[in-house]
Amino acid sequence: MIVVGELINGTREPVREAIVTHDEDAIAELAVRQHEAGADYIDCNVGMVGQQEVEQMRWLVEVVTSAVDVPIAVDTANPDAMEAGLDAYFEFGSNAAPIVNSITLESEKTERFLPLLAGRQVRTIALTMDDSGVPASVSGRVDAAMRLLEAIEEAGVARSDIFVDPVVTPLSVDPGGARITCEAMREIADRCPECHLICGVSNVSYGLPQRTLLNRVFLSQAVAAGLDAAICDPTDSGIRSAIYAAEALAGRDEWCGRYLAAWRRGELQ
Amino acid sequence: MIVVGELINGTREPVREAIVTHDEDAIAELAVRQHEAGADYIDCNVGMVGQQEVEQMRWLVEVVTSAVDVPIAVDTANPDAMEAGLDAYFEFGSNAAPIVNSITLESEKTERFLPLLAGRQVRTIALTMDDSGVPASVSGRVDAAMRLLEAIEEAGVARSDIFVDPVVTPLSVDPGGARITCEAMREIADRCPECHLICGVSNVSYGLPQRTLLNRVFLSQAVAAGLDAAICDPTDSGIRSAIYAAEALAGRDEWCGRYLAAWRRGELQ
Repeated sequence: MIVVGELINGTREPVREAIVTHDEDAIAELAVRQHEAGADYIDCNVGMVGQQEVEQMRWLVEVVTSAVDVPIAVDTANPDAMEAGLDAYFEFGSNAAPIVNSITLESEKTERFLPLLAGRQVRTIALTMDDSGVPASVSGRVDAAMRLLEAIEEAGVARSDIFVDPVVTPLSVDPGGARITCEAMREIADRCPECHLICGVSNVSYGLPQRTLLNRVFLSQAVAAGLDAAICDPTDSGIRSAIYAAEALAGRDEWCGRYLAAWRRGELQ
Repeated sequence: MIVVGELINGTREPVREAIVTHDEDAIAELAVRQHEAGADYIDCNVGMVGQQEVEQMRWLVEVVTSAVDVPIAVDTANPDAMEAGLDAYFEFGSNAAPIVNSITLESEKTERFLPLLAGRQVRTIALTMDDSGVPASVSGRVDAAMRLLEAIEEAGVARSDIFVDPVVTPLSVDPGGARITCEAMREIADRCPECHLICGVSNVSYGLPQRTLLNRVFLSQAVAAGLDAAICDPTDSGIRSAIYAAEALAGRDEWCGRYLAAWRRGELQ
């Protein structure tokens, strides 16, 4: 499982505060904690809009790349902030390709985002949204994924560097959503075995109590459907335990080697 | 989710002891605890062989049916013990149909078991095994399920009273087994939407540490594949929590009503 640590997100109040006050220590600590918990990428989302987002993204990426030697995911819907984040990463970060989070089929954004991929050594998340929003049906999500794959490949990114995100909607407002997302994953995995499947796990539990339980169970179901990457909280041992168990059960952990190693380290709960 | 409480099983040492010494209180307590935890059926397995099994099964069923007003599952591979258990249930038990656990395609057993269904008001578990054992492939399990459905229907049991069990093998000895079981469930649910899908959840974790974690995650994946009944420990709050969350995520709990009610009762963990 490729883990993108989600904690550095300016929509979380303490993180917004740290970004606004340029509290480098607080941000660095979040990056280090996620790295130590096994994050393969550190998501960077400043949670602001406009020109402020561009400036804060540059600062945020510089702080994160100074704190840990782990690639980042630049998480923004603003193409200028994306460019600023990528530029800062290539100036200060590790040699590993960062993730562009994300490319959609929204026509205005696509025009601005796709050129950012060309000539840069990046991986990207392909979010199945178009000008009408998130397709409601499984086939709508799969079609959007296929169109995105084609556009992103044309922009120069190999399929093995594309993480398709079929969008996770909150169960509290979309009772059939989790099932549709999993079915879409299953079909996309079938049609494009080279690409990765990712999602923002904790979206599923938004607005409901006992969120970690729902996140763990959804993650377990999504892994069985083909999920091999997750935007999640790697410091949550319940989530990590679910990943180890789900991958073993999905036949992706030969003789339960990683599961048993995690157990020996006392990590499973 | 239809829950068959698995705790009264003579292969568990304290239960064997209680059966051998005819300790009615110990057995009754196990039945009551499972009933209170929400079991829809109480499994009765004496864990012995031969004539002893027949006599103990009669005693066991009598004790369980006196303790709780819940139907039972008579769990034995011995047709005489099955008959004795069913007869005792119809003499002492509730009016609800008990479950015959189980019918297979093993030719010698089928000959003896199928006639036990005729003329009795029973439901039955159809275990996808034949004379060669458990089919290794998804298609082998699905074929076995279809042949069993046909034979059991011919013996007079409606499809809606059949619980297909595509067999759960221990992950410790069969790394691809859980995946094959889930894929088989998915296909059987598709081909026979009227029948139920059941499995013995805890088999999956046999021989591995942190069994409850694996059981919970497997159950979550199986529910997404169509499982709507489980032989499990209803007194395990981790298992119950996973059931509530998995059913909500699978779109089988409208507006999360049962999930929220369980949360309000403080049951979720």
